[in-house]
Amino acid sequence: MGLSVLKFGGTSVANPDLILAVAQRIADVRSRGNRVVVVVSAMGHTTDELVRLGDAVSSSPPRREVDMLLSSGEQVSIALLAMALNQLGVPAISHTGAQAGIRTTDSHTRARIQSIDTARILRELDAGQAVIVAGFQGVTEDGQITTLGRGGSDTTAVAVAAALAADSCEIFTDVDGVYTADPRLVPEARKLDRISYDEMLELAVLGAGVMHSRAVQFGQRYRVPIHVRHSRKSDPGTLITEENPEMENASVVGCALKENLGRVSLRDLPNKPGVDAAVFVALAQADINVDDIIQNEASNHGMNMSFTVEHRDLADIKPAMERVLAELGRGELSIDVGLSRVSAVGLGMRSHTGVAAKMFSALADAGINIFNITTSEIKISCIINRSEGEKAIKAVHAAFGLSGDQQPAVDTLTPMNAARRSTANAAN
Amino acid sequence: MGLSVLKFGGTSVANPDLILAVAQRIADVRSRGNRVVVVVSAMGHTTDELVRLGDAVSSSPPRREVDMLLSSGEQVSIALLAMALNQLGVPAISHTGAQAGIRTTDSHTRARIQSIDTARILRELDAGQAVIVAGFQGVTEDGQITTLGRGGSDTTAVAVAAALAADSCEIFTDVDGVYTADPRLVPEARKLDRISYDEMLELAVLGAGVMHSRAVQFGQRYRVPIHVRHSRKSDPGTLITEENPEMENASVVGCALKENLGRVSLRDLPNKPGVDAAVFVALAQADINVDDIIQNEASNHGMNMSFTVEHRDLADIKPAMERVLAELGRGELSIDVGLSRVSAVGLGMRSHTGVAAKMFSALADAGINIFNITTSEIKISCIINRSEGEKAIKAVHAAFGLSGDQQPAVDTLTPMNAARRSTANAAN
Repeated sequence: MGLSVLKFGGTSVANPDLILAVAQRIADVRSRGNRVVVVVSAMGHTTDELVRLGDAVSSSPPRREVDMLLSSGEQVSIALLAMALNQLGVPAISHTGAQAGIRTTDSHTRARIQSIDTARILRELDAGQAVIVAGFQGVTEDGQITTLGRGGSDTTAVAVAAALAADSCEIFTDVDGVYTADPRLVPEARKLDRISYDEMLELAVLGAGVMHSRAVQFGQRYRVPIHVRHSRKSDPGTLITEENPEMENASVVGCALKENLGRVSLRDLPNKPGVDAAVFVALAQADINVDDIIQNEASNHGMNMSFTVEHRDLADIKPAMERVLAELGRGELSIDVGLSRVSAVGLGMRSHTGVAAKMFSALADAGINIFNITTSEIKISCIINRSEGEKAIKAVHAAFGLSGDQQPAVDTLTPMNAARRSTANAAN
Repeated sequence: MGLSVLKFGGTSVANPDLILAVAQRIADVRSRGNRVVVVVSAMGHTTDELVRLGDAVSSSPPRREVDMLLSSGEQVSIALLAMALNQLGVPAISHTGAQAGIRTTDSHTRARIQSIDTARILRELDAGQAVIVAGFQGVTEDGQITTLGRGGSDTTAVAVAAALAADSCEIFTDVDGVYTADPRLVPEARKLDRISYDEMLELAVLGAGVMHSRAVQFGQRYRVPIHVRHSRKSDPGTLITEENPEMENASVVGCALKENLGRVSLRDLPNKPGVDAAVFVALAQADINVDDIIQNEASNHGMNMSFTVEHRDLADIKPAMERVLAELGRGELSIDVGLSRVSAVGLGMRSHTGVAAKMFSALADAGINIFNITTSEIKISCIINRSEGEKAIKAVHAAFGLSGDQQPAVDTLTPMNAARRSTANAAN
């Protein structure tokens, strides 16, 4: 008898009718002889509404209390789903994160799962129950309720599947699977049947909203195949899995666009040891993620540094950087807003040359300026004007032949040429 | 330094503005040097809305899942209140029933508090926190979330006050205190400054909505003075406390009306041992409370029995009684609906004679038929037509001089006379 972990997001359980439809889907999986554990998010816009309530009573709510507030949302959806299943004749029992044994760190609103004590889930499975588990939440050793941050329910599902050594982890959502690009931006985007953990991770980090990166990391670490599919269709969706030799055939499997970025530039910093540390310790303390870091030595023996941050972090970053400059006793701060990042991802970049050059050419042909470039073994990202984002992802998507049945084409520019060209553009 | 337990009901925390007002009130109590524990209900109509959601997915939701669903309501209000207090500069931390150590029986939707482990509350108080506790909910030894049934938040507050040996337990509500009768029915009703536990218990059971009987029982058992007062006024309210000699001066302190009762009559039952048991075991199994029980021997050696139940229990009672009659092999069932019960309560009945007679006279003078009478040492109840309920409570309230500064008057009919008269009326 197989064990399946199924996860349904908030849009799939947004009202009683949808909950009954989800219950029917679970009943079908169970009637095929599978034991099931179901992870559920809060209904529809519940979490947003709870956040609004919190904002109405407090300008800076303690994060512990935010978790107490938000975790009530899944408590509603798990109870309703258990009721709906019982109504369909399927014995089912709901569990909060704490009851399901999901132990986390004590970083409220962004806790990380440390361990899962599966004893209670296994006991209920053995008793013939469909086991419902609240996504997104857990409990500290001290009994404090925590939440896992954005995409937390996916992480719960994959972590539970890993802890139970489940045969499959199916992430039901409101899209058909993972696409070569966001179909809202690129209508020709094509659904992928398979994608490797590494590629999915890069795409998730770079702005593809389908799966959260932490969930993919869990899947990769514990070798849980993750099946992303539509909650109201029987289509096969996309399997996120370990890479296999075939995957290398495509140089690029997908593109992503991340909008609303700002670039922070620090100029004329003292050129001495410890300056980087001062900047990045301050960023860590302010809990701000940065990317696309460039550092170089300026002619007057001062140092320049720049990096990108999300717009929402700009309010925090200004005072943090001003304090650093005051401590260093030297340097200037400037912030540019209205930027985006367009990226291409694929395992095939390891073996195919010229991928970067192809991307830069595509952007250049579309008349798009590149402000900055970062690369990894399997991705290339370019910082561009936000207003050109949609044009950029369409150009890149087309250049790599990602739509329909086109074969990806790779030209003959070497990565070396590509790097030179990128520097030229970055200096624009 | 005193320790106060404050309880705020759902209407007092129905929206963010009201929550901020409650937080200000708590801040004021705390600024007078008191340590505070605050028990809160779910916001406004949250519980009703959750019940509606449950009804939309299930015709008979498992009671365990009902508790999972409903307990989410207080989780929202405790988190928001803790946020509001922190916003006002008062350190505050929220606790679910489980976190607050409230251990209950496993009777879901109507669990009873068995014990309270105060270690965590005391630790937070010692750390200088205002401690917020979710009312209405607890946890079983096995970690299942339970709720305490109607009025459960009052019970939580009094039980927490008892466990902490608090100096006071203040129940903040949307009325000024306990009245001689419901002011919506009897506009002349007067607020009481003090009332004994015994009197409040009788009034609570008989239909006065201010306090739930179980909360009063807890207060009485653990000698916690309960202070009922308005959440948005500084008026002193009503103190529910142990009786003192002065209280006996008034023969009747209050009246209550309970509407929507039905009378179940069983006629021509076999007149043999075990018949009563068969009926009442069936009632207990169906979880139905009955009152006003009358039993007598009919002329043909059959037995007759009648009792009252609330309308909401009528759907369950018919099949239960039909099963009993089938087992007994003899008897007829009839059910009357549209009845109410008017009651008068007072410690003074113990020492004053003629109280019952005065009540019956008042009802007779108002032209109201009495169908049944039940008495205890400190209360008299009459079953009447529902349509005459308001007239009845007004007549009784006036007869005992409960409004304004009138002195209660007691006439000279003996209880013996009263009893005879009641039988006559009951036979009507």
